[in-house]
Amino acid sequence: MLSERFIYFFGNGNAEGNASMKELLGNKGANLAEMANIEIPVPPGFIITTKVCKTYYANNREYPPGVKEQVGENLKKLEAIAEKKFGDNEDPLLLSIRSGAPASMPGMMDTVLNLGLNDSTITGLIRKTNNERFAYDSYRRFITMFGDVVLGIEHDKFENILSAKRDSLGVKLDNELTVGALKELVGEFKRLIKEETGNNFPQDPEQQLWMAIDAVFDSWNNKRATKYRHINNIPDHWGTAVNVQSMVFGNMGENSATGVAFTRDPATGEKRFFGEYLINAQGEDVVAGIRTPHPIEDLKKSMPVIYNQLESIYKKLEVHFKDMQDIEFTIQDGKLYILQTRNSKRTAEAAINIAVDMAKEGLIDKKTAVLRIKPEQLDQLLHPMIDPESPVEVIAKGLPASPGAAVGKIVFTAERAEELGTSEKLILVRAETSPEDIGGMNAASGILTARGGMTSHAAVVARGMGKCCVAGCDGILIDVANKTMTIDDLVLKEFDYITLNGSTGEVIKGKAKLIHAEVTGNFERILSWADEVRDLGVRTNADTPNDAETALGFGAEGIGLCRTEHMFFGEGRIETVQDMILAETSEERRAPLEKLLKFQREDFKGIFKVMAGRPVTIRLLDPPLHEFLPKHEDLLEKITILKTKNIENEELKELEKLKTRVESLDEFNPMLGHRGCRLGITYPEIYNMQVQAIFEAAAELIKEGETVMPEVMIPLVGHVKELEITKRHVIRTASEVMEREGLKLDYLIGTMIELPRAAITADEIAAEADFFSFGTNDLTQTTFGLSRDDAGKFLPEYIDKGILPCDPFVTIDQGGVGALMEIAIEKGKKTNPDIKLGICGEHGGDPASIEFADRIGLDYVSCSPFRIPIARIAAAHATLKK
Amino acid sequence: MLSERFIYFFGNGNAEGNASMKELLGNKGANLAEMANIEIPVPPGFIITTKVCKTYYANNREYPPGVKEQVGENLKKLEAIAEKKFGDNEDPLLLSIRSGAPASMPGMMDTVLNLGLNDSTITGLIRKTNNERFAYDSYRRFITMFGDVVLGIEHDKFENILSAKRDSLGVKLDNELTVGALKELVGEFKRLIKEETGNNFPQDPEQQLWMAIDAVFDSWNNKRATKYRHINNIPDHWGTAVNVQSMVFGNMGENSATGVAFTRDPATGEKRFFGEYLINAQGEDVVAGIRTPHPIEDLKKSMPVIYNQLESIYKKLEVHFKDMQDIEFTIQDGKLYILQTRNSKRTAEAAINIAVDMAKEGLIDKKTAVLRIKPEQLDQLLHPMIDPESPVEVIAKGLPASPGAAVGKIVFTAERAEELGTSEKLILVRAETSPEDIGGMNAASGILTARGGMTSHAAVVARGMGKCCVAGCDGILIDVANKTMTIDDLVLKEFDYITLNGSTGEVIKGKAKLIHAEVTGNFERILSWADEVRDLGVRTNADTPNDAETALGFGAEGIGLCRTEHMFFGEGRIETVQDMILAETSEERRAPLEKLLKFQREDFKGIFKVMAGRPVTIRLLDPPLHEFLPKHEDLLEKITILKTKNIENEELKELEKLKTRVESLDEFNPMLGHRGCRLGITYPEIYNMQVQAIFEAAAELIKEGETVMPEVMIPLVGHVKELEITKRHVIRTASEVMEREGLKLDYLIGTMIELPRAAITADEIAAEADFFSFGTNDLTQTTFGLSRDDAGKFLPEYIDKGILPCDPFVTIDQGGVGALMEIAIEKGKKTNPDIKLGICGEHGGDPASIEFADRIGLDYVSCSPFRIPIARIAAAHATLKK
Repeated sequence: MLSERFIYFFGNGNAEGNASMKELLGNKGANLAEMANIEIPVPPGFIITTKVCKTYYANNREYPPGVKEQVGENLKKLEAIAEKKFGDNEDPLLLSIRSGAPASMPGMMDTVLNLGLNDSTITGLIRKTNNERFAYDSYRRFITMFGDVVLGIEHDKFENILSAKRDSLGVKLDNELTVGALKELVGEFKRLIKEETGNNFPQDPEQQLWMAIDAVFDSWNNKRATKYRHINNIPDHWGTAVNVQSMVFGNMGENSATGVAFTRDPATGEKRFFGEYLINAQGEDVVAGIRTPHPIEDLKKSMPVIYNQLESIYKKLEVHFKDMQDIEFTIQDGKLYILQTRNSKRTAEAAINIAVDMAKEGLIDKKTAVLRIKPEQLDQLLHPMIDPESPVEVIAKGLPASPGAAVGKIVFTAERAEELGTSEKLILVRAETSPEDIGGMNAASGILTARGGMTSHAAVVARGMGKCCVAGCDGILIDVANKTMTIDDLVLKEFDYITLNGSTGEVIKGKAKLIHAEVTGNFERILSWADEVRDLGVRTNADTPNDAETALGFGAEGIGLCRTEHMFFGEGRIETVQDMILAETSEERRAPLEKLLKFQREDFKGIFKVMAGRPVTIRLLDPPLHEFLPKHEDLLEKITILKTKNIENEELKELEKLKTRVESLDEFNPMLGHRGCRLGITYPEIYNMQVQAIFEAAAELIKEGETVMPEVMIPLVGHVKELEITKRHVIRTASEVMEREGLKLDYLIGTMIELPRAAITADEIAAEADFFSFGTNDLTQTTFGLSRDDAGKFLPEYIDKGILPCDPFVTIDQGGVGALMEIAIEKGKKTNPDIKLGICGEHGGDPASIEFADRIGLDYVSCSPFRIPIARIAAAHATLKK
Repeated sequence: MLSERFIYFFGNGNAEGNASMKELLGNKGANLAEMANIEIPVPPGFIITTKVCKTYYANNREYPPGVKEQVGENLKKLEAIAEKKFGDNEDPLLLSIRSGAPASMPGMMDTVLNLGLNDSTITGLIRKTNNERFAYDSYRRFITMFGDVVLGIEHDKFENILSAKRDSLGVKLDNELTVGALKELVGEFKRLIKEETGNNFPQDPEQQLWMAIDAVFDSWNNKRATKYRHINNIPDHWGTAVNVQSMVFGNMGENSATGVAFTRDPATGEKRFFGEYLINAQGEDVVAGIRTPHPIEDLKKSMPVIYNQLESIYKKLEVHFKDMQDIEFTIQDGKLYILQTRNSKRTAEAAINIAVDMAKEGLIDKKTAVLRIKPEQLDQLLHPMIDPESPVEVIAKGLPASPGAAVGKIVFTAERAEELGTSEKLILVRAETSPEDIGGMNAASGILTARGGMTSHAAVVARGMGKCCVAGCDGILIDVANKTMTIDDLVLKEFDYITLNGSTGEVIKGKAKLIHAEVTGNFERILSWADEVRDLGVRTNADTPNDAETALGFGAEGIGLCRTEHMFFGEGRIETVQDMILAETSEERRAPLEKLLKFQREDFKGIFKVMAGRPVTIRLLDPPLHEFLPKHEDLLEKITILKTKNIENEELKELEKLKTRVESLDEFNPMLGHRGCRLGITYPEIYNMQVQAIFEAAAELIKEGETVMPEVMIPLVGHVKELEITKRHVIRTASEVMEREGLKLDYLIGTMIELPRAAITADEIAAEADFFSFGTNDLTQTTFGLSRDDAGKFLPEYIDKGILPCDPFVTIDQGGVGALMEIAIEKGKKTNPDIKLGICGEHGGDPASIEFADRIGLDYVSCSPFRIPIARIAAAHATLKK
C-alpha cells in the first residue's frame, strides 16, 4: 500500500510543489518550491505539510504512520544533492528547521539553525571549511537556539553567559569573539543545558532533528502565536508546515553575509530596492537589532557581482509574484542564496502607492490594485497626524519605522501596556522589542525603541499593525527598573506624555497637536477605482454639520444616521431638555419644546446645507429620558449629606423633587426600556417637535434655493402598529409645515430594524416603511441577550476561549444576527419589493460586516466619517469577491 | 337591482335567521330567531345586522344605501303581525331597541324601551289599555332612557327629579307613584331635555327610531363597552346588531311582571330552576337592584299557569341549546313572553358541576363537557378559601353572589380601585354597581354591595369575572364622601382590611386566614376527562418539596423548572452565597461552595423524593451574582452618612470594600448581563457544585430504593459552544459522582431557548441537547427588546391603544416570539428529531399560550402549581380544537 504523501521536496531547479499550495505547504514552503521551479538559487530541502501538523494535534501529538519514513527518504535525497551526509563526521550536512504557516506570522513560531552539529560532526565541518571560528560560531548558535526553542531554557541565560564572555574579553560584538572564547562558550552552554534539564545536550543528529520538528509543530500553539492569530484572524486549525533545508552560512567570514530586502520601500511604497545586511552573520542577527546593519546600497560597492545578481532576482520575483516581495538572502562565501520570499507587509501609504504604481506599470489591473488594499489598514492614514503649523519640541530622533503620529503616556514594559489596555493612549518604550512583546505592542498607540533598524522586530510588527513606530533611537537611555528614560539631561517618567512622528522619526516632548489627514493623490485614485467597482452605497453617521463636512471630504454619499439626541447635550440646551422632561403636563412641556424646536431647526438646517441634496436620514429621539437627567446616586449622595447635617433648605427640596422624578423614570434595564418610538408614542409632542424642526429647516433652505432630501427614521419599532402610529404623526406634522410654507417636498419615512421581533415581522413592517436601516448594535444586544455595556465582564474570556470567533459588536455575527437580517430582508421584500436597505450600526465600518452587507443585498452601509474610505474599499472588495 | 340584505325578520313561529348566525345577527338576535323557529313565544321583531354596524363605522357613520328602506319594509311586516301601527294615535305599536353583539356583553351597550310614545300616541295607549298609570309610567321611562342613552343627558338628573317626586309624595318606590305624579314627571323630564339640549323632546316616532338606532350602534364604541371587550378579548371589529322588537309590558299592572331566570343555579351548578322577578316592572328594574325581587318559586304560587309554561319553556330551551340558559321574560297582563335566551355565565364551580351533570344526563358527551370549562375560570377554584378552622369575626351577611374568598383594603369608588390597580388587594364596596364600574370591578379582588339581588349587576359581572362577590348586604351604610362604611356601630374607613366569603355571603372584619382548595369530586372527574383527551404533558415549576407536593396534588406529571437560585436565599444560606461571591480566588471560594453543596444536596433530595421518579428539570444558577449582594445605593447611603459624620471605623472599611465589589459586579442591563451559562463558564466551580449536589442527592435516594430522573438544564445559551463547554463539565462531574458511588443513572442535559440567537441557531444547539425548554419570559423580553420590570411605564398604554392585543408577558406573542419558537423547533428537529420540547415561562399556565404550544408540537408545558388544573383543561381544549 502506498503511504499518504506528507513531504514535498524542492531543489536543483525543480520542486514537487508550487506557490498555489500555501494551504498545504505553508507560505514559506510554497514560495521556496515556486522559487526552485523558476530557478532562483534556494538551498535544497523539503516541506513537512500542514496536514501532518493537524494530524499531530488531533492524535495527541503523535505523527501519522509514514511520516518518519518519508522524512528519512527525503533526507537521503537532500544528502545526494548537497553531496554531504547528515551526521557525517567528514562532511556533515547541516539543516535549518523552520516553521511556515499558510499565512505569514513573522517571528511568532520557532526556528532552529545549524542542526546536525555535535562534538564529532564539528570536526568534519572544521576540516571541510578550514574555518574553526565559523564552525564554533555555528555550534554555539545551534546550542543556544536548540536550548531555547527545543529545550525551553530561557534565552536570557545563554545571553548572560555570552555577554559575560564579551565583557571578559573587552569586546562589544559577538563577531569579535575569539575561537577560544567560542569554544569555551560551547562548553559553558552545554553545562547550562545539563543544569537546566538534567540531561546532556543531545549529540545524535537524528534525535536533534525530531526534537526540533516537534518543537516547531508545538510552537504553533505557543502563547504569542495564538495571540497573533487572534489579532490577525488566522484560524487556529490551519496548522504550520515545517521546512527542513540544507544550511547555508552567512557567518563563514568576511565574504559571507545575511540580509533582508524589499522590492519597494515598505514604508512609503517608493519604487526602489530597499534592504539591509550584516557581514559574517546569521539571519537572527539582522532582525534581532543587536548589530546595526548596512543599507543594501553598500553591497553594491562591497560585492557588486552579488548585488547585480540580487537585483535581477528581486525584479524577477516581483514580476513573477506580481507583488512587492520581502526577501531573505544569505551570501555564503561569495555565493548568493535566497532563503525566503513573501508578499511584503507594508504601511497603508505604501500599499496605496504600490497598488497604484503597479497598475500604472501594467503589472496588475485596477481591480487587483483595489484588492491589494486591506481596508482595515487605511485606518492608520485616517488617524491624526502632527499639525505642521503647531510648534513642537523635538527631543530625539530615530528611524521613521512606521508612519503616522501617536500621542500617549510612556510605559516601559509590554505587560504594563497590556494591563492598562486601550483605556489609555500609551507609547511603549523599549530598548528593543521581541516576539513576547506582541500583546503590549497591540495595546499601545505607538512604539519607540532605542535599538534596531528599519527591519527590526519593532519596525516590522508596527508596520503590520498600522501603528506608528520610531525605531533605533539611540539617544535614549532606558531604565526599566526605575521606570525612566533619559535623553541628554531630560528625564521622563512612566505616564509622562510624549508624541511620536513615525513618518519622520521624531520624538516630541508632551502632547503635540494632531490634525486629520486628507484624501488626496494615490489615495483618492484608488478610492475612485473602488467606487467604479462597488455595488454598496457608503453613507456616514453624522450628528453635526462639522461631522457631515468631514464625511463628505472622505466621500460619503449621504447621511445614514443622524442622531438627534446628541444635539440635546449642546450648550444651553440640556437645561431646556431637563425642563421638558420634568414638566408634568403636556401644557408645561410646551415652552421648553418651543425652545428646543428653534435649536433643532438650526441643527437640521446646518446639516442639510452641508449635504447639499444628498439623502439625510434623521433618527427621532432614541435614548430613555433619564439619560438627560442627573444620576440618581449623585442626588442620593447630596441629599444624604444635607440630611445628615440636618440642613433643610430649598436646595434639599429641589433635590428631593428631582430625585423623585428621576426615580419615576429610572429603569432596571434601560436598554430594554422606555425609549425609541415608545417615547414617540407616549410623548408624541417630542417627536412632533423634531419633525416640525426637520421640515421647517428644509422649507427655509428650499426657499434659499437649496435641495433637501430628508429621511425620517423611527427607532426601536417592534410591532408594525408602532410604526403606523408614529408615521401618521410624522405625515401630519410634515404636511402642516409644508402647507403653511406653501411648498411640497419629497421625503421618506422608514424604520430601524434593531429588534428580533422587527426582523421576524418585517413583512408587516415593510408595508409601512420606505426603508429599513439595520441597527446592528441593538440587534446584536437583543439577539444575543448581551448588554454591550456589561459584556466586558465575560466577552473577552469568550473570545479567548474561542466560544465566539470575534467580538460580535465589531463584526456581525452572521450565524445569528446576520440570519435574522436575512429573514428581515426576505420578508420585507415580499410586501415592499422597492424597500431601501441599509445598515447604520458600527458594523457599517467593519470590512467583514460590509462584505456580509453586500452579500445579503443591502443598498448602503453607514459608518463614522473616518471609516468612509475603509468602507469604500471594503465595499469594492465585497463586489469583487462575489 | 336587488339591494343587499341588511335585516332579518322573526315572529309568529318562524324567522329568517337562526342560532348559527351569531356573527351576523348578534347573540341576542340569533337566539331570538332560533326561539321563534321552535315556537317559543317571543315578541316579533327584526334584526339590523352587525354588517350594517361595520359599514356604519367604515363610512363615517353613514348607513349603506338600502338600510332605511329595509327597516321601513320590516316595520310594516311587524305592524301587520302586531296588528298595531307605529306612531298611530289609536293603537300605537311601541318598540324596544336593543343592542346585541356576537358575544354577550351584558349591560355594556344601550337599550331604549317603549319607543314610539309621544304626546299623541299616549292617548291611544291609554284608550287601548284603559290604564293611564301604565301609559305614563311607560312614557316617563321612555323619556328617561331616550334622554340618557340617545341625548346623552346624565341619568342622575332624571333620577334626582324622580326621587324628589317620591320624597314630595312620601313614597319609597316608583310603583307607588300616582298617575298625577307620573304625568308631572313627564312634563318635568321634557323640560329637562329642553334645558339640556336646547331642543324639545322629539315627538316624531320615525325620528325617535333612527336616533335610537344610531345611539345603539354608537354605544358599541363607548368607553365601558371598549374596556369590556379588551378585558374579555372580544375583537373591536365585530360590531353589534340592533334588535327592534314589538314591546311587551311587565309594567301593565299586578298581572304583569318581568324577570330573569337560569335553567340551573349559576353559582353552584345545582340542577334547579333559579331566578327572580318583579311584579309590575320593566326589565331594567330587576338588574338595577333597586327593588329587591321575588325568588322565582313565588311565581309558582302567584301565577301557577305561567310558572308551568315557563318551566316547560326552560326545559325545552336547555335541551335545544344543550347548555344552561339565562332567560329574560316578561308577563304582560297574564301572557308570557321570552325576551332573550343565552348560554348563561356561571361560576367555575357551577361550570364544572353542570358539565359533569349534563354529560351524565347524556345531554352532551365528555369532550363537550371538557370544552365547557373555561380554563381561566378555574383560577377562582384554585385561589384561596377561608380556612374553616381559623376564627373569624363576621360583621355582616349578604347574598353569596359569587363564590370564593377575598381579603383586601376597602375602596369606595371604581375610579379609586382602577387608579390603585392590582398593586394592592382591594375590596370594592358600593351601594350598588353599574356598568360604569366595570374597570374598578376588574381591578378589585372582591366586590361588596349594599343593595341588589343574585342577578344584580354586581353579582352577574363578578361571577363572569370569577371574582368573589357579596351582594345586597343591607346592614351596611356607605358614606362615599367621607370614605366610610358603618355596620351597626362599627365604622370602617378606606384602606381598612375586610374579608369576603362569596360562598356564604359573610363579611369578615380584618384579614381572615386563607387556605387552598383541593381537587375533588366533579372537579377531579372533569380533569380526568381532560387528561384522556390531551396530547400535551403538564409539568410544574417548583423550587421546593412543598411546591412539588402541591403540584402533584393538582396533577403535575413532573417538574419542568426547578430554579436553584431561590434556594440560595434560605435561612443561613445567603451569607454563604455572599462569601462565595466575595471570594477573590477559586481557592477562597472553596469553603463556601462546600457549605452550599450540603444545602443543595438536601434541597434536591427532598424534591426528587416527592417527585418519586417523575422527571425533574433543574436549571443551574441563572441570575447575576449581584442579586445576592446588598444594593449599591444602600451601601452608598450608609457610607455617605459615616463620612459626613467624619467617622472612620472598621464598619466604614468593610462597607467600602463591599461597595467596591458590588460596583465591580454592577450592571447597566442585568437582564442582558453576566448571568445564566455565562456564570457557568466564568465560574465553573459554581455549576460543578450544583451538578455534584444533584447527582449526590440522586445517588443517596437510589441507595434508599427510590427512582430519580434528573434533567439538567443550562440557562441562557446563545451559542452552541456555551452548551458544549457547560455540558462537558456536567458530564464530567456526574460521571465522577456516579463512579464514586458505584452506580449508573440515566439523566438528560438540555437547554433553555430564551434568546433569539438560540432560536435562530437551534439546529446547532439541538445537536448537543436532549431537550429544549422555551423560556418564554426572557425570549419575550429579548425579542421585543422589552424589560418586563420596566414595561409598566408604557405597556398599559400600548394595550389601551390597541398597539398590542394583549400583554405579551401573559399570552405568547405568536407573530414574533411564537414565530421564533417555530423556527427553533423546525431547526432543532432537523439535527435532533427526538428532542424533547417544553415551555417553562409563565406562559406555560396561560390557556391561549397552551393552545399555541400544542399547535407547534411541544411535548409539555410547565406552570406554577396552582395553574396545573387550568393547564390540563387548556391542553385538552387545544387537542379538541385541532
